[in-house]
Amino acid sequence: MFKANEEYLKLPGSYLFSTIAKKTKAYTDAHPEASIIRLGIGDVTQPLPGAVIDALHKAVEEQAHAETFRGYAPDLGYSFLREIMAKEDYAARGCDIGADEIFISDGAKSDSANIQEIFAPECKIAVCDPVYPVYVDSNVMAGRTGTYDPDTQSWSNVIYMPCTAQNGFTPDFPDETPDMIYLCSPNNPTGAAMSRDSLQAWVDYANRVGAVILYDSAYEAYISEENIPHTIYECEGARTCAIELRSFSKNAGFTGLRLGTTVIPKDLCDRSGHALHPLWARRHGTKYNGAPYIVQRAGEAVYSPEGKAQVRQIIEGYMKNARFIRESLAEMGYEVYGGVNSPYIWLRTPGDMTSWAFFDHLLADANVVGTPGSGFGPAGEHYFRLTAFGSYENSVEAMRRIAKM
Amino acid sequence: MFKANEEYLKLPGSYLFSTIAKKTKAYTDAHPEASIIRLGIGDVTQPLPGAVIDALHKAVEEQAHAETFRGYAPDLGYSFLREIMAKEDYAARGCDIGADEIFISDGAKSDSANIQEIFAPECKIAVCDPVYPVYVDSNVMAGRTGTYDPDTQSWSNVIYMPCTAQNGFTPDFPDETPDMIYLCSPNNPTGAAMSRDSLQAWVDYANRVGAVILYDSAYEAYISEENIPHTIYECEGARTCAIELRSFSKNAGFTGLRLGTTVIPKDLCDRSGHALHPLWARRHGTKYNGAPYIVQRAGEAVYSPEGKAQVRQIIEGYMKNARFIRESLAEMGYEVYGGVNSPYIWLRTPGDMTSWAFFDHLLADANVVGTPGSGFGPAGEHYFRLTAFGSYENSVEAMRRIAKM
Repeated sequence: MFKANEEYLKLPGSYLFSTIAKKTKAYTDAHPEASIIRLGIGDVTQPLPGAVIDALHKAVEEQAHAETFRGYAPDLGYSFLREIMAKEDYAARGCDIGADEIFISDGAKSDSANIQEIFAPECKIAVCDPVYPVYVDSNVMAGRTGTYDPDTQSWSNVIYMPCTAQNGFTPDFPDETPDMIYLCSPNNPTGAAMSRDSLQAWVDYANRVGAVILYDSAYEAYISEENIPHTIYECEGARTCAIELRSFSKNAGFTGLRLGTTVIPKDLCDRSGHALHPLWARRHGTKYNGAPYIVQRAGEAVYSPEGKAQVRQIIEGYMKNARFIRESLAEMGYEVYGGVNSPYIWLRTPGDMTSWAFFDHLLADANVVGTPGSGFGPAGEHYFRLTAFGSYENSVEAMRRIAKM
Repeated sequence: MFKANEEYLKLPGSYLFSTIAKKTKAYTDAHPEASIIRLGIGDVTQPLPGAVIDALHKAVEEQAHAETFRGYAPDLGYSFLREIMAKEDYAARGCDIGADEIFISDGAKSDSANIQEIFAPECKIAVCDPVYPVYVDSNVMAGRTGTYDPDTQSWSNVIYMPCTAQNGFTPDFPDETPDMIYLCSPNNPTGAAMSRDSLQAWVDYANRVGAVILYDSAYEAYISEENIPHTIYECEGARTCAIELRSFSKNAGFTGLRLGTTVIPKDLCDRSGHALHPLWARRHGTKYNGAPYIVQRAGEAVYSPEGKAQVRQIIEGYMKNARFIRESLAEMGYEVYGGVNSPYIWLRTPGDMTSWAFFDHLLADANVVGTPGSGFGPAGEHYFRLTAFGSYENSVEAMRRIAKM
């Protein structure tokens, strides 16, 4: 008789953001009059840029006529999008990435969950702690993480790299050698960004020990400081050790439109010389059917002169919120991190309050929804994440309420 | 050092439709003057219905304003779409399927590839032979299929159920008991549709032996005869043994827009009583981020009175092609199947010609691209698939050229 996948059954509780949504719904059901400000899940609130809207309308119109109708997209994405990305995101930064090394998908979340599939089940993963839950949970589902210890909130077969105020939220090389290393910079949830030297050191380390770096650069558009790399391929040697995941969600507001990319250099091979590029191509061809034509045209518009200017303006708006939240909390006496090269503000909960206790406190007493740091891993306990993705008015109002708590 | 997933390396050659695309490209590169008619991959050619275009424009406009902008979609899909589907696809046919048992996704291909993930690795699959390659290939990638024998073109740990002219292309119960049974009706590639009695017998069998049926109904809109079920939930007992996969691609022309659904009744449990519904919900929440809002609105429009009428008209157009192709080939003396309840025509290759030899012959001598039956499994050898998704003019021209070969 058929049997469910037991690895799935090992997952404790439900996915972090689903839990937050349920708790928030329970609160609003009980307090229908409450005006909730959502600074929890990292969803954008600004509408799509005009250039993107125009491109969408135009592409929809093409789909209305037989002569211009497009059915199945090419497996790996339309070349108009792959080529503009190769030029603008890589060549313009001096990085050697070909258009045929860029895979278009429905978002960095799917890709960051699915990418582990092309690796052997016995590969050992290393993750920052705290970390975006998808990296760990997708490996749990694949049976790669051992057993869960509810006391330490950790998996027996995962190498955790604590990122705390002590190390500036930049991970140290682990004692045990990993096969797959997940890095995210600017970081979700801590908001910290790795310097070029730090990232180069990680690339050198990965090449030395034979590990692959799965590099999530979803927030690169928020980098405001010099000397922070926008892509891992700015580092020497990254072509032989790194896969990069990019997103259109956090720059151009595509959270509800769905578009992302994964870059796999053709030089990237495992210990037996098996290149990873054809494996991911095979996965795309077999388990996926391409991002919608109209959405790929929308992605292309992000790189037009108008698109670029509009995206820049949206990001500046969010970063104004980030600055305001960061400075307000600091004034209130909170210990605050992030918010400079990223839309996330990472704060220490007051006193000995757990992350979830602070979540409940904030929801009940300020009607503000944030994200408990412990939801991102054991070292996130006693931390809390707020996002700058609300409107300016809401960010101001949230700070006013928190100051009054 | 990291290691690639060896299961991926077991896959022989590349994905069928990628191979066809490559062969066709090689031919057109060598013969740029050739006017190719593509009746190979099952891609539609008619533009999107007017009701869908209108819904897309309207939803795009909503995304242009902060008050109506929508970011991340609900994990499992917007309720406006799930509810209309529960009503129109199920309640209207007397089937008891709740809106919360319907999961919205980016297409039936992704879902049919991913659904195996929620089952234990030791589950044994049964597939029709010939079969849509995604069912088998996704299980190969998961390590469920044993070893490949190139001589018989089959996997050691897969139960094949031959579907040939002898059994009317309806599979018999296998000698060995499977855990997971893939069924597709109307069938891709053979074009055969299961009668209500046949499908009820399979539901009874699955409940008796404790197997789950993964039922692909992507082509249900093409059913023209009475007594052919449009959903497996028309059969008694299906709620405890069947998952259904639906598509918007082949009815409403969404191949380039991407929208599909998977139905998992809440009663469906494995031998230990583990319900499958929460596992798929967990997969959606962790590895997927929802279908685009604008595309879900487009899906909703398919169920409006105008949408329904327009979809009906498109399907009638394709079925006119199907009838023409079927009757023309029969007149030429080909042994022809399908094309009555499905857009696929399944023919026997002339003489002793292999499927790929007939592919090359058709490409070179009629400039028509079809799909070799052997690409769908060993029992597909000496068969060939043509689709009715071209224009009427192209279907007529293709038959004219084939008649002259």
